[in-house]
Amino acid sequence: MHHVGQIKIKKGMRVREIIREMGKAGVLGAGRLARAVEVTREIFNDEDYTCLLGLAGPMVPGGLRQVIRDLVDKNYLDAIVSTGANITHDIIEAMGYRHKTGRIDADDPTLRRLGFGRIYDINVEMKAFEALEKRTYKIVGNIPEDLRRNISGYEILWEIGKRLRDENSILKTAYRKNVPIICPALHDSMLGMNLWTYSTFKTLRINFFKDLSKLVEISTEAKKVGAIIIGGGLPKHHLLVSNTLRGGLDAAVQITMDRPEAGGLSGAPLEEAISWRKIKGKNRIVNLIGDATILFPLIVAAATDGG
Amino acid sequence: MHHVGQIKIKKGMRVREIIREMGKAGVLGAGRLARAVEVTREIFNDEDYTCLLGLAGPMVPGGLRQVIRDLVDKNYLDAIVSTGANITHDIIEAMGYRHKTGRIDADDPTLRRLGFGRIYDINVEMKAFEALEKRTYKIVGNIPEDLRRNISGYEILWEIGKRLRDENSILKTAYRKNVPIICPALHDSMLGMNLWTYSTFKTLRINFFKDLSKLVEISTEAKKVGAIIIGGGLPKHHLLVSNTLRGGLDAAVQITMDRPEAGGLSGAPLEEAISWRKIKGKNRIVNLIGDATILFPLIVAAATDGG
Amino acid sequence: MHHVGQIKIKKGMRVREIIREMGKAGVLGAGRLARAVEVTREIFNDEDYTCLLGLAGPMVPGGLRQVIRDLVDKNYLDAIVSTGANITHDIIEAMGYRHKTGRIDADDPTLRRLGFGRIYDINVEMKAFEALEKRTYKIVGNIPEDLRRNISGYEILWEIGKRLRDENSILKTAYRKNVPIICPALHDSMLGMNLWTYSTFKTLRINFFKDLSKLVEISTEAKKVGAIIIGGGLPKHHLLVSNTLRGGLDAAVQITMDRPEAGGLSGAPLEEAISWRKIKGKNRIVNLIGDATILFPLIVAAATDGG
Amino acid sequence: MHHVGQIKIKKGMRVREIIREMGKAGVLGAGRLARAVEVTREIFNDEDYTCLLGLAGPMVPGGLRQVIRDLVDKNYLDAIVSTGANITHDIIEAMGYRHKTGRIDADDPTLRRLGFGRIYDINVEMKAFEALEKRTYKIVGNIPEDLRRNISGYEILWEIGKRLRDENSILKTAYRKNVPIICPALHDSMLGMNLWTYSTFKTLRINFFKDLSKLVEISTEAKKVGAIIIGGGLPKHHLLVSNTLRGGLDAAVQITMDRPEAGGLSGAPLEEAISWRKIKGKNRIVNLIGDATILFPLIVAAATDGG
Repeated sequence: MHHVGQIKIKKGMRVREIIREMGKAGVLGAGRLARAVEVTREIFNDEDYTCLLGLAGPMVPGGLRQVIRDLVDKNYLDAIVSTGANITHDIIEAMGYRHKTGRIDADDPTLRRLGFGRIYDINVEMKAFEALEKRTYKIVGNIPEDLRRNISGYEILWEIGKRLRDENSILKTAYRKNVPIICPALHDSMLGMNLWTYSTFKTLRINFFKDLSKLVEISTEAKKVGAIIIGGGLPKHHLLVSNTLRGGLDAAVQITMDRPEAGGLSGAPLEEAISWRKIKGKNRIVNLIGDATILFPLIVAAATDGG
Repeated sequence: MHHVGQIKIKKGMRVREIIREMGKAGVLGAGRLARAVEVTREIFNDEDYTCLLGLAGPMVPGGLRQVIRDLVDKNYLDAIVSTGANITHDIIEAMGYRHKTGRIDADDPTLRRLGFGRIYDINVEMKAFEALEKRTYKIVGNIPEDLRRNISGYEILWEIGKRLRDENSILKTAYRKNVPIICPALHDSMLGMNLWTYSTFKTLRINFFKDLSKLVEISTEAKKVGAIIIGGGLPKHHLLVSNTLRGGLDAAVQITMDRPEAGGLSGAPLEEAISWRKIKGKNRIVNLIGDATILFPLIVAAATDGG
Repeated sequence: MHHVGQIKIKKGMRVREIIREMGKAGVLGAGRLARAVEVTREIFNDEDYTCLLGLAGPMVPGGLRQVIRDLVDKNYLDAIVSTGANITHDIIEAMGYRHKTGRIDADDPTLRRLGFGRIYDINVEMKAFEALEKRTYKIVGNIPEDLRRNISGYEILWEIGKRLRDENSILKTAYRKNVPIICPALHDSMLGMNLWTYSTFKTLRINFFKDLSKLVEISTEAKKVGAIIIGGGLPKHHLLVSNTLRGGLDAAVQITMDRPEAGGLSGAPLEEAISWRKIKGKNRIVNLIGDATILFPLIVAAATDGG
Repeated sequence: MHHVGQIKIKKGMRVREIIREMGKAGVLGAGRLARAVEVTREIFNDEDYTCLLGLAGPMVPGGLRQVIRDLVDKNYLDAIVSTGANITHDIIEAMGYRHKTGRIDADDPTLRRLGFGRIYDINVEMKAFEALEKRTYKIVGNIPEDLRRNISGYEILWEIGKRLRDENSILKTAYRKNVPIICPALHDSMLGMNLWTYSTFKTLRINFFKDLSKLVEISTEAKKVGAIIIGGGLPKHHLLVSNTLRGGLDAAVQITMDRPEAGGLSGAPLEEAISWRKIKGKNRIVNLIGDATILFPLIVAAATDGG
């Protein structure tokens, strides 16, 4: 047992400094955040580590697009496992559409009439999805038919990324950096719906086994694998399960607001994953409870800062 | 505004009676539960309704397997959209393996050594998954190679269900009743891992577009569509998105412990889905906050009881 | 480790029967609920047990007034530890005012203008509180001045209960049954505000040490003490701390939606209370996560039913 | 509707800079945090504002003691409304006892045997409370008997603060700065238990009406009242209710992990308080969902930094 230190605020304090203070306290959320920074810093700086990012929840619409893109650009990430939604929203931003601030007490039938989809306090113009459909058809049409017969999700996303003109796009940057974006249910998204309709009149067959092979290959070839898991859901499970063949992740940080008692994976503490051989041990895992749009930028700022 | 009635407990009270009392209160959780029963009863009894069940979280390991199987058997359900985990656990139960009660303060490295995977307070023998692998290979090997070249997830699950010998199996009953089980990320599960390894040495290509087509077909051909959504995640999103082509669900009940503020779909109130054309309007939607292993049996008992 | 049984729904099922089925599952919320019924049944039926009820959150406005009143009437409860709000709302119901169903998306400035106070989806007429003020002044004025100089909270509440004409009132029934209602911050409520203003022009001094003495006396004189704790907050803490002198409660069930990670007592699992000598051991404690307006009626119905 | 901006992380970023970035996003938790800083900054800098701090949950054991003490020292706070626990823990730290880091999977019967009380992942030596008892008796014994006959809670706490020798004590600093600490259920704490036992053999009568009068006086005499409410429970309610006589608070930020659906005040959004005349309007209220040991230091650092 250590003493719980008291956090001290100073003028002009840097992010890494305030988190160091939280580490002195070492308990409750403050202690977990400091520990998450420590583990993330190790994953980012130790060259033996391959780093995976799990991405669920509206992280791109919620303002983390640039943060994620910059991490790819600066070579911190080796693969991303994401919901289809975050991919879709990256593309519509790249096409010039913007997410807008909304209200949690909005009247949804009214928004529907006005042509907006709501994500908590974020609004998205539905016409962005019409433009997306056209763009998707055009891009996919340019993929050689041979490849389209048996293409992985990550290959489609690279093909799309290659053709986007926005340097701030996660997809474009991931293509440029050769970082695969694994979207294990890519068809379950607005982009995926477009791919599906395309497949009803032209050749397109997505082979998700190829995505899984890619992810397993990355994990098994790595000396060590670390993961930062934002939100739960399919990305969390897929990222974890693809690491069972190597006996589990070496280090992991998860950020979630879900709770464990209902038994779902999203709220499960990372400790459970040890029993399943999805994580190796207790030493380098942190369960951070809170809002990722606050916590992830703080972690990135502190973990990538000199020190 | 109505008066809030006071709940009255009587000796030997039936489930539907106590929920009727909760309906007299009409507020907080009690009011929502009574309203959920009302909407579910309408979905179950109105012949115009096609009923979809969304299934996330450890519902089969958690004791709801028989409840779900009986709903299929009694023709209440027209399709199930599930995580791969619930499917996997149905199969291992059908093979004679049992889930066991565990402890939330279990030491996970010890469980790993002893060969158990933990889901909150449930333990599963890992050797069940070795048996699953053999069985999966055998069953899939019996599927004609032609079909294996371009098979949907629900077809694989019917093929498996057909060959299981346990009448209490959800998969077997669904096969018998011709109810498709849509598992939009089937490869993301222990069963899915086995299908993937199989695909590395024999012919197997899953085409999830066929699953989506099936689900859209069911929705668009229905007069009305109602859904009961247990947990969030991929099943919730997939179920909702597949109904956009018809302008949304006519009625829906969701049961979740996730909260809305972080913006993820799992905790989002159903109202948001109206803006996205995933649900038609506010009249028949209920957001029930709580544990599905308690709430779903109560709803089923009350909604399928005479009066 | 036991096998996880599968819940089976039958026609016309009684509450105690469905909870017995949940007990066969024995895991997640279903298992906890069944265990809560078991512990409550023991507290209710074993004559050695003194039973305390902790009451936080809008349980009276939310429809549990009759349930609680009936438990007092049938001698199940030996003391209640409550927030002032539940007391206040019992009195205004006894005076003929009714709580009304409201909307969670209500516009609060509008409600304010219309004279309603909102509690989630419950509305209360503010004019009830004007009537409460008059009534309080009259009742307190009838208490002998000598007693008013050094009166406990529970004595005030008995004095009020004695004078209410509504047989369904918790306060009246508690007075009739000689059950003390301990409200450790009685001044912190609408009723309390009235007592405070009264004290600014007439004699009134509340001595909460007398309430604490009463509660400690009840606990230390009991062979065994069991508690059902609805919600957290001050009632939970006060109930627990008053049992430290006897080494803690012998049995306890808590029902809450709060989570433990932020460290507050409301969401803390009962296990923590063992270290503080507030609970004796692990054998008879149940942490039930969920909405008390659903779970408490279920527990009462099952625990007081024959078999 | 504004565009949702993208958060940009830079080397050596200051706390106020990263929160400014979050403000550009303006949605989800990030947006709320930025808005909370804005409102807090206004409360802190506008001389018309009187500032109240609500304090529930283990904020002193959790590392916020110095942050709160410094706010008092720098004249940011005009009154504190707290649970008894935070007061108790400030005193035992002032007496030289330290809180220690613990484990959430600790065995509580073992901790009990070893003499530790657990608060989530914090341990406290029980012998600190024996020392507290002696100290309390001595300090209270030094209060003139006349005052002891009818003393408010805040006066007791000033008397204690006056006699502590630790300059980092919140109580000592509050005494020095003439800031009242209102603890509406002071008797409900380890300190309060000591005061109670003292009262069983010597003169001591706490009059909480005097505390309420003080709090109402501060509020009604203020031009504007702003509040930062950490956690819910009694402090939140008491702080709010004491402002009804002036038509409500002018500005408020609350930080909580509790959720609204169960209807309890702790998780209720501040909007509800408008209907009760506890808050004036919607313009300056922020509901921040998260861990206060992370969020409060961030807010203080950003709101008190130049700009």
